[in-house]
Amino acid sequence: MLIKLARLCYKGEVPKVVDAEARRRVVAEAVFRVVRAQGLDQASLRNVAEEAGLAVGSVRHYFADHDELLAFALEELVGRVDRRVMARVARVRAASTPEERFAGVEGLLGELLPLDPDRHDEAVIWLEFSHAARTRPALRPAARRIHEGIRMVVGRVLASAGVPDVPVETERLAALLDGLAVDAVLQPDLTTPDLMRAVLRRHLAGLRPGGRGPL
Amino acid sequence: MLIKLARLCYKGEVPKVVDAEARRRVVAEAVFRVVRAQGLDQASLRNVAEEAGLAVGSVRHYFADHDELLAFALEELVGRVDRRVMARVARVRAASTPEERFAGVEGLLGELLPLDPDRHDEAVIWLEFSHAARTRPALRPAARRIHEGIRMVVGRVLASAGVPDVPVETERLAALLDGLAVDAVLQPDLTTPDLMRAVLRRHLAGLRPGGRGPL
Repeated sequence: MLIKLARLCYKGEVPKVVDAEARRRVVAEAVFRVVRAQGLDQASLRNVAEEAGLAVGSVRHYFADHDELLAFALEELVGRVDRRVMARVARVRAASTPEERFAGVEGLLGELLPLDPDRHDEAVIWLEFSHAARTRPALRPAARRIHEGIRMVVGRVLASAGVPDVPVETERLAALLDGLAVDAVLQPDLTTPDLMRAVLRRHLAGLRPGGRGPL
Repeated sequence: MLIKLARLCYKGEVPKVVDAEARRRVVAEAVFRVVRAQGLDQASLRNVAEEAGLAVGSVRHYFADHDELLAFALEELVGRVDRRVMARVARVRAASTPEERFAGVEGLLGELLPLDPDRHDEAVIWLEFSHAARTRPALRPAARRIHEGIRMVVGRVLASAGVPDVPVETERLAALLDGLAVDAVLQPDLTTPDLMRAVLRRHLAGLRPGGRGPL
């Protein structure tokens, strides 16, 4: 989209570096749309190129092979979630009351749940990639980084809040977030954003016994 | 396997009803092995027949089409988990102390987690089917029944224990079980049986505040 607009406005040559970067992003967005609608198995170079409105040869110019294309798309997804989480971390740090802090942590962890259409799409794509990684070794390192990244974020939140037994509590909260995301992807009419918020709030409240605990 | 043994021992005709039932089970087992090793997309009639050591025509004789084959296999899986859960329910009911009851509930819910190789295989197959149901409408009713079945079991356990706000707590515990199962399927070396047991125990302990609660 961006690159198309750029082309329309430019009279001369589009600078090469910007062009390559933007073009790769356009292709990654097309990967997301194909994976969301038809599943990862349908995200062939041909289908992705068609979805992006590009020739297959043009896509091949920017990605050495299919695995590189998928890996780049997944990194794009991770980067997007990362930026949102980082913005939330800053808000938690700036909190001046326990209530502000609790709301901040809830908002931060909510970035990992499919609470709106964009995050729902991200969860669908995450599950497609993670699931495919079971039988496609090339996707495993990226799926692993996402799994560990979620635990790193959750673990830091719990540790900085002084929750006891961080390793088990991290796995419990991360598995809960994973389970809610999977359930929302597979049964979206049952696992609604309101239900997910209520579950997350209950869980966090349980980490501050008597309302005077660390969170 | 059973049917093969029966054939070896029989001199006359194998009774037709037994034969059909046993043969369908043999085919379902072959579905499980193909799905586990290669993913659901590879569970074609041809591949399943080959895995079962049968001619494709023979498999077609017992199943009207591919969807019926997959649906039967999924029902087999559900029946297997059901029988184990029911046996555990009887033990919880027979518990005479709170400790016995807690251990019984932990054992019952553990039947829904991939704590041993058989249950791990079941979780792999569950995720393959549930995931495929997102883009294959024919599989959705069965995937839905499993989703709701888990919530029915969890909801009854929590309600009979007198846990407050059963709807939200049911979703929280069911999502946790789903998340642990997905994580164990996708990252088996990180999400070990010991870790899953520790997480489940912590969660159940959190449902009886101060150790004197209902669970």
